[in-house]
Amino acid sequence: MKPDHLPTFTVEPWVVREPRLDLDAMGQTESVFALSNGHIGLRGNLDEGEPHVLPGTYLNSFYEVRPLPYAEGGYGYPESGQTIINTTNGKLIRLLVDDEPFDLRYGTLHRHERVLDMQAGTLNREVEWESPAGRRVRVRSTRMVSLTQRAVAAISYEVELVSNGNDGSGAAGDAALLVLQSELVANEQLPGRDADDPRLDTALDNVLEPEQSRAGDAGATLVHRTRKSELRCGAAMEHEVFGPDGVQVSTDANEDLARTTVIARVKPGQSLRVVKYLAYGWSSRRSLPAVYDQVRAAIAAARYTGWDGLVAEQRDYLDDFWATADVEIDGDAELQQAVRLATFHILQAGARAERRCIPAKGLTADGYDGHTFWDTETFCLQVLSFVAPEAAADALRWRKSILPLAFERAETLGLKGAAFPWRTIRGHECSGYWPAGTAAFHINADIADAVKRHVHATGDTKFELEVGLELLVATARLWRSLGSHDSAGNFRIDGVTGPDEYSSIADNNVYTNLMAQQNLRYAAEVAAKHPRSASRLGVDSEEIASWRDAAGAMFIPFDERLGVHPQSEGFTDHQRWNFEETPAERYPLLLNYPYFDLYRKQVIKQADLVLAMQIFPEAFTEEQKRRNFAYYEAITVRDSSLSACTQSVMAARTGHLELAHQYLAEAALVDLQDLAGNTDHGMHIASMAGTWTAVVLGFGGMRCEADGLSFAPVLPASLSRISFGLKWQGRRIRVSITPEETEYRLTDGAPMRLRHHGEPIALDDEGPATAPTPTPEWVEPVEQPHGRAPRVRG
Amino acid sequence: MKPDHLPTFTVEPWVVREPRLDLDAMGQTESVFALSNGHIGLRGNLDEGEPHVLPGTYLNSFYEVRPLPYAEGGYGYPESGQTIINTTNGKLIRLLVDDEPFDLRYGTLHRHERVLDMQAGTLNREVEWESPAGRRVRVRSTRMVSLTQRAVAAISYEVELVSNGNDGSGAAGDAALLVLQSELVANEQLPGRDADDPRLDTALDNVLEPEQSRAGDAGATLVHRTRKSELRCGAAMEHEVFGPDGVQVSTDANEDLARTTVIARVKPGQSLRVVKYLAYGWSSRRSLPAVYDQVRAAIAAARYTGWDGLVAEQRDYLDDFWATADVEIDGDAELQQAVRLATFHILQAGARAERRCIPAKGLTADGYDGHTFWDTETFCLQVLSFVAPEAAADALRWRKSILPLAFERAETLGLKGAAFPWRTIRGHECSGYWPAGTAAFHINADIADAVKRHVHATGDTKFELEVGLELLVATARLWRSLGSHDSAGNFRIDGVTGPDEYSSIADNNVYTNLMAQQNLRYAAEVAAKHPRSASRLGVDSEEIASWRDAAGAMFIPFDERLGVHPQSEGFTDHQRWNFEETPAERYPLLLNYPYFDLYRKQVIKQADLVLAMQIFPEAFTEEQKRRNFAYYEAITVRDSSLSACTQSVMAARTGHLELAHQYLAEAALVDLQDLAGNTDHGMHIASMAGTWTAVVLGFGGMRCEADGLSFAPVLPASLSRISFGLKWQGRRIRVSITPEETEYRLTDGAPMRLRHHGEPIALDDEGPATAPTPTPEWVEPVEQPHGRAPRVRG
Repeated sequence: MKPDHLPTFTVEPWVVREPRLDLDAMGQTESVFALSNGHIGLRGNLDEGEPHVLPGTYLNSFYEVRPLPYAEGGYGYPESGQTIINTTNGKLIRLLVDDEPFDLRYGTLHRHERVLDMQAGTLNREVEWESPAGRRVRVRSTRMVSLTQRAVAAISYEVELVSNGNDGSGAAGDAALLVLQSELVANEQLPGRDADDPRLDTALDNVLEPEQSRAGDAGATLVHRTRKSELRCGAAMEHEVFGPDGVQVSTDANEDLARTTVIARVKPGQSLRVVKYLAYGWSSRRSLPAVYDQVRAAIAAARYTGWDGLVAEQRDYLDDFWATADVEIDGDAELQQAVRLATFHILQAGARAERRCIPAKGLTADGYDGHTFWDTETFCLQVLSFVAPEAAADALRWRKSILPLAFERAETLGLKGAAFPWRTIRGHECSGYWPAGTAAFHINADIADAVKRHVHATGDTKFELEVGLELLVATARLWRSLGSHDSAGNFRIDGVTGPDEYSSIADNNVYTNLMAQQNLRYAAEVAAKHPRSASRLGVDSEEIASWRDAAGAMFIPFDERLGVHPQSEGFTDHQRWNFEETPAERYPLLLNYPYFDLYRKQVIKQADLVLAMQIFPEAFTEEQKRRNFAYYEAITVRDSSLSACTQSVMAARTGHLELAHQYLAEAALVDLQDLAGNTDHGMHIASMAGTWTAVVLGFGGMRCEADGLSFAPVLPASLSRISFGLKWQGRRIRVSITPEETEYRLTDGAPMRLRHHGEPIALDDEGPATAPTPTPEWVEPVEQPHGRAPRVRG
Repeated sequence: MKPDHLPTFTVEPWVVREPRLDLDAMGQTESVFALSNGHIGLRGNLDEGEPHVLPGTYLNSFYEVRPLPYAEGGYGYPESGQTIINTTNGKLIRLLVDDEPFDLRYGTLHRHERVLDMQAGTLNREVEWESPAGRRVRVRSTRMVSLTQRAVAAISYEVELVSNGNDGSGAAGDAALLVLQSELVANEQLPGRDADDPRLDTALDNVLEPEQSRAGDAGATLVHRTRKSELRCGAAMEHEVFGPDGVQVSTDANEDLARTTVIARVKPGQSLRVVKYLAYGWSSRRSLPAVYDQVRAAIAAARYTGWDGLVAEQRDYLDDFWATADVEIDGDAELQQAVRLATFHILQAGARAERRCIPAKGLTADGYDGHTFWDTETFCLQVLSFVAPEAAADALRWRKSILPLAFERAETLGLKGAAFPWRTIRGHECSGYWPAGTAAFHINADIADAVKRHVHATGDTKFELEVGLELLVATARLWRSLGSHDSAGNFRIDGVTGPDEYSSIADNNVYTNLMAQQNLRYAAEVAAKHPRSASRLGVDSEEIASWRDAAGAMFIPFDERLGVHPQSEGFTDHQRWNFEETPAERYPLLLNYPYFDLYRKQVIKQADLVLAMQIFPEAFTEEQKRRNFAYYEAITVRDSSLSACTQSVMAARTGHLELAHQYLAEAALVDLQDLAGNTDHGMHIASMAGTWTAVVLGFGGMRCEADGLSFAPVLPASLSRISFGLKWQGRRIRVSITPEETEYRLTDGAPMRLRHHGEPIALDDEGPATAPTPTPEWVEPVEQPHGRAPRVRG
């Protein structure tokens, strides 16, 4: 967490406003203000490029290959990894005022405000700056990455000469010469990173080989290719210029730089405005002319639409999105803003990823090398299937597209079916530490779980057959070969790593076994439902029976003595971590203690057994849920941002409503308040998604199963109202919870039934249905490890 | 194993003879013929240097630093490693015969024999070679590394011109011009290694920085320094020349090369002989002049002794050694030879290491980077304490000398006491894979075990106090902090790796827990015996009590259902490896299957629980020993050369005498027959040591405890007699086992008592005592995994 200083952002419902430039928080604001549509990602760098913490322009799945070294190698270790690269920067617009470069580090900054407008989908900036020579300008820029035109971004940049009333300055009142340089820059030099943090990786320099550069009158195109991964990227820009008479526009380009220069002499009160259209495209297969033409076509479409058109499309798109997805929180303004920012970034990460991966940081920075993990299925798709189902379907279609690599990986590992990569960009396993990579097989069941959830959320049987079936068969086969029956007939899965990364290579992880059980059962169900398609995948009734048998015999360890489920077999026999003697500055523990010590003690980085309870409430009695929750609360340190949201859900479901509120706030505020101290490495997309999940699955008590949709709403005394919406099988529903009653409203689609705390409710377009919200009951408080309770906010 | 061809070596009792040059086995013969005294090691390269597989000249602990890279780093990972380096090569003697270089790859080789003479301690070579031009020479060389003068090696090299009777050659009968070039060469280029094998590491090139080179008339000195580790090494040579009149000798030297050239015109029947004296020295602290003088002094001493003197000293030393250490095997000539080679190499590895480490490959090659592991204490010192106790004491003094680094390492790991490195040269942890490095804490108890064994073997109470006490206190403290009491009061040691490297990070490894128990108890005993010294180490009676308590409460898991001890808690619940479907070519498994799969299944690389039974016979009932042995036999694949010897011991003790014989042969023949296919990377020193152990602890049933020495001899029907000797508390004893009786003879020292199968026997200088050898009884046969039974020899 940062040292105390003025808050970086103001608290407002629909915007994130930085009212004054906060240089200390620049890495954070670059991430929070990042704009993306899931295909293009532009970090919130200043228009003029400097100062910066990390310049960033990303294209989904545009990566370079780098070697993965090992002090001692091993069979099956991946030899090379993939790293997202900072591609051609088209955000840059430099300004000179009478030869003086506009740079916030020089001159006088009278005003600097940036506003992320989540309804407009734009980043707006207003600056009033006085040059060292006394020239005062007002700069207004608006930046957008189009959600409607996937290959397009655009910037409106306006400079107004201000009469600064400084009569002592000889220049006051006179016209000033303004020069705008709008650029495309490839192979930007990147700052070094902290090499001591194993979670970060070094960036790659000069990775783009120039292939073509062409300049027109008011625009240019650069095409580059990565050296080792051999991916081709095109970037194009065009400009519309609005200014006083005599404005001149010219463009030049060389290998790594294209520059459109706009020059005008401007009088006080006059302004010069440039609209910059940007287009990006990349391909591993298409030829140089094809990629070139592709970006020129995109930019032509953008110009055809025009700035006002792009802005209008963006707002329409977002109006429609928010109509479903908006979560309203009454009684906690800070949380209200954070929940909207979270929802906005989830949309940005997934909206137009279109059969490519959704990275853990979205396209907001290069943290984790730009890799995607289980975060996608378990956290992001939990939201997207209910608010942007096409984006969720596409993410799973991407998984299906990498099945050939997952088959290969399984074979390398001596397993049947598919073994999906723990971390990857394009499908190849890029994990260089197998106990927390290869061994975390649960990712395969997480994918199956996402398929099941998506099918139940959408009722899309075509998707189930065309995308789901093969994923389910491939993952069921993995589990059948990974587990084995012991002499007592139990089906065991030994030597794997569950979600909690402070344990590793353990037997019968409850989460993993329950997920595998569901995977096997659901694969059996879907295969039996589509026998001909299943048969084409080589599935026969013997194999289906073997899945059902394994699922039925799945071993779920239970510690009778303590009356709780061990996270994995034997876990509750281990020594408890000495939390009392662990000083605050030694968190996160993985940076200050060896894995060996973390692994062999009872200390939990992130919800594991608790996540199992979230996903499989019927696998635990209410008594077990309460006992398990209390037990794991006491040893969970939340060194992962993937934890608070799940703890919030289970806190809500076990009656700890204020605690659930605190965990929800932690999940929602992780980046807005930089709680993990690493927002500069990118937004915590899973935590953003978990924010929605905490509201809807926790307080809303939503469940979506084969037998329909149900809710079990509860409301903490600290909030006066929660309202959220979702899509379900072609309908739109909005649920509003007040202390007295919960209102269910069908805003679109055919009549339907749902359950409220088990009671059936019918919904149609006649108006909302209501049912009483239960009054919270007192429950025995739970405790967190010394110093690790969630923050109680002011 | 190599493809079938003529045996490389003949079977003879006291020599290892290569009767003809076996180019396919050159890497193996370089290792088998390596000469060493524990300080200097010279691989068995040809005098003329080429052809070779790996040129090798090593000095104990003379290493370079190299970075240890990680694809994903972690807290406490060592950042740099240590690699033994090939230092200045002084073995080289090149020969030109009438301008034709003597090279076995050209001309005609009429005869080529090499003989390692284990009684003389020399490597002898005889060659008859005809040059492409028809000149025939006979070359006889004898090489030695002095066991009496630690810094000295010497070579006698003689060339005789043979009348080849080839009258067609104009040269026949005429004198020939012979040129001998005797060299010191630094920074030899090394061949590349197989990078796919994670057990190997790349060598380092040009690692020696020249500091000084000086040539005399018939000798020279080179001093170099390593770049990063900053160790200084001096190498010197001097020559004595015996030849016909007119022989000329000259020497020149530059930075990386010194060369003494001897030229003579020799007639048929005449010969030219050179004696080359070599001296080596290195230091991390001594100045250039000091190191220079040190090697000049050593070479002066060698010349003073003279060739005949060095040869005589060497034989005296070895006569004395063999008088104690010789193991006689009647009825298996192949094994007899192998056992002597094993004993010889153990002596070579340890004799003069003198407070430096004993590497896993001795000084015979650079395998495992020249590192030392637990092999030293558990395998080598088991022999050395009984046949060369001063060498054993020095090895433990080395451990004591690296205690400061072990204290530091423990602190890094958050532990008390000392954490000795899993692999190292100079004491720094060099393991780049923590699950099989840091987690293998048993090495600390292995050191304590070696201390206990050594004290009991020698009765050296001064050693116990001066060396043992601090090692015992430091390791006991480690165990006390590594383990913890569970709620039932058991003392558990979780998340560690035992000897078997096909399991990792498991709870309550039986071997580790028994070893820790002994470590704690013995530390308590010795500390209580020396209260004032213990007090100076901060030990009080509370701490001693806490060691005793932990030892008393030590948890030893047992599987009641199967009636066997699990290797670690839960091990016997795991799936068995599918041995039936594992083809022979996929062994060793670690090169063909991922760790994750090996770790989670019942498959054992090397004796672990079985080793626990060897060391702690009283911790298991006879029934448990039989059941455990059979159980683990069926799942042990012996992918480690550290296994067969231990299996031999426990096979002998559980009545499987023929199996014990087969395992003994496998341990003994591992290098002589290159059974692991990697003898070119160095001799398997632990397996060599295990050979002695299998004879003495297995067939001899020897135990050496605080209450004295005991034997329980048995003899397989396939052998007619076994005889071995040992030193015990200042005495020398020889034990000879025949099917009828066992003879005990006190060859030196005061009268003593021992036990024979539990019955007391008194020994004095009046003559041997005898007792009946029990007749072997039939026992239920045990089975090994499919295809992994020990080889039944012809």
